[in-house]
Amino acid sequence: MERKAAYRLAILGATGAVGRAMIRTLERRGFPVESIKLLASERSANQTLTYAGQAIQVEVAKPESFEDVDIALFSAGAGASERFAPEAVKRGAIVVDNSSAFRMAEHVPLVVPEVNAHALDGHQGIIANPNCSTIQLMVALNALKEFGLERVVISTYQAVSGMGQTAIDALAQEVESWRQHGKVEETIFPLANQDVHYPMAFNVLPQCDVFLNNGYTKEEMKLVNESRKILEMPELAVSPTAVRVPVVYGHAESVAVRFQTPVSAAVAREKMHTATNLVVVDDPANYLYPHPQMASDTGETYVGRIRQDLEDPHTLLFFVVADNLLKGAAWNAVQIAEALVARA
Amino acid sequence: MERKAAYRLAILGATGAVGRAMIRTLERRGFPVESIKLLASERSANQTLTYAGQAIQVEVAKPESFEDVDIALFSAGAGASERFAPEAVKRGAIVVDNSSAFRMAEHVPLVVPEVNAHALDGHQGIIANPNCSTIQLMVALNALKEFGLERVVISTYQAVSGMGQTAIDALAQEVESWRQHGKVEETIFPLANQDVHYPMAFNVLPQCDVFLNNGYTKEEMKLVNESRKILEMPELAVSPTAVRVPVVYGHAESVAVRFQTPVSAAVAREKMHTATNLVVVDDPANYLYPHPQMASDTGETYVGRIRQDLEDPHTLLFFVVADNLLKGAAWNAVQIAEALVARA
Repeated sequence: MERKAAYRLAILGATGAVGRAMIRTLERRGFPVESIKLLASERSANQTLTYAGQAIQVEVAKPESFEDVDIALFSAGAGASERFAPEAVKRGAIVVDNSSAFRMAEHVPLVVPEVNAHALDGHQGIIANPNCSTIQLMVALNALKEFGLERVVISTYQAVSGMGQTAIDALAQEVESWRQHGKVEETIFPLANQDVHYPMAFNVLPQCDVFLNNGYTKEEMKLVNESRKILEMPELAVSPTAVRVPVVYGHAESVAVRFQTPVSAAVAREKMHTATNLVVVDDPANYLYPHPQMASDTGETYVGRIRQDLEDPHTLLFFVVADNLLKGAAWNAVQIAEALVARA
Repeated sequence: MERKAAYRLAILGATGAVGRAMIRTLERRGFPVESIKLLASERSANQTLTYAGQAIQVEVAKPESFEDVDIALFSAGAGASERFAPEAVKRGAIVVDNSSAFRMAEHVPLVVPEVNAHALDGHQGIIANPNCSTIQLMVALNALKEFGLERVVISTYQAVSGMGQTAIDALAQEVESWRQHGKVEETIFPLANQDVHYPMAFNVLPQCDVFLNNGYTKEEMKLVNESRKILEMPELAVSPTAVRVPVVYGHAESVAVRFQTPVSAAVAREKMHTATNLVVVDDPANYLYPHPQMASDTGETYVGRIRQDLEDPHTLLFFVVADNLLKGAAWNAVQIAEALVARA
């Protein structure tokens, strides 16, 4: 990408929960924007959104939409990414793709800028944004990588906004049914496109995304495979359990990590304290630890409850929280765009 | 205890969430009741409750209340247990205590009847009911004990009813504040008696009970110490993280267990299937797994998402759910009373 004073952007999936967060994040971070095109499917294009005080009509995405675009941020699902990313690249745009379409493709960098911005070098037009639950885990683990990561056991507490705006509305609807009838009527959880639904309000569901043949969910396997790619540790052992909870914004993760060397909580806290964009909130005596509503609407990753395992000095436990729509999606994508600009 | 056709019972803490569940459980299980005394503190005694269709005035608990009582079920907090249990035992009653007061005392059996009813032999008048989060873990782990438990990593998803009826009301109040103002106003979470409170509705809080000096919470250390005592494995490695979630009834637990021998998911499923009062709900192809609202108002423990670790054939992951007020408290206490009767 050529270095410029400002860039021509496009956002595909601009009307979705992540697309809207991308617009807000570009504003908040003062990204150098020359022009911005907002794109969506036919179904969603009948809308006007606002960027930096300026009303912008959302257009129906077509291959030609990506003419005269420097950077395209994609968040319209894997199908749309597969269709439009090659078209955008062909027309000279760099695509930062929030879908899972290209994440594991060999020549596509999968980037958390604080962790592996170097992977951007030599990209071929498409850069993948990792899955929300992976990103925040990476920011925390990277701070401790020097102790030799051996095994990661992770249980997640994932917000419904990870399923998009319809899921946010559905949770509100379930809460309302509980208020009116004292009973939660199920809506679309754990997945809109499956036969069986369960209540999400006042419940937790150990299913995020579809089940694979190995008994793990796709969300769980993303945690495994994306972590290995980002950390460049193809052998890293990851034991994932992904659980949806009735939270609107903010994923939390309970993590136990075994290292090659012993690590004290104090040393880990110090390492994490100096890591970029990782905020240590860890003072039990004053009841300080991270929780989703603390992280909501921020771009940082928060870590607390850092403690050594009771038996194994090589193992640390901690609790990681971030806004899944921001650091877990839109914010990280904009950071990738910034890193591209810095490298231009 | 002498064998009889029916027994004289007392319930201390009868007006609380667990006390009421004890009354309902005695009814549901058809416990042989000759008489039942409902006891509470002065503050709560001005109430009439119903047992088997019969209105019973709640009395203020005094040492003399335990005259002519065969079995006393206690659920009024550790302070009340410390005060009244010796008085009840002195008067010939057997106390089944739901508080933490005596759980770790050397001569007090700590009992999950499906797991260690034999520990009741030679009791000295007080039997302790384990903590809610421990009980359901024990039912699941006991089914796999023959493979040699080595290490248990557990992250919990705990319902607010574990903090009593006031917490259930407080969560409803927070949901209402969110409905009216679009923002959750914090109430009493994570603990009524501490200076700092956080929103619980649409949030998760990695604090159940108070923090101890080692950085773990009391709830987490209960999981460690009670598991070791019940399983009679004083060296068992347990790595606990206890988290409160906005669920009313039903605790869930994400568990990773390492065994001395390799264990396949199929073998584990079969062993768990034959365990008493453990229900295997584990058919991902048909979207079947346990969740809190499935377990709510039942006495069973549910397990699903049983799968072998991706790297280590000695490690299994699974998800355990039970009603924290029933199997986690009242139901287990009544089961202990039944086991005492069976042994009389």
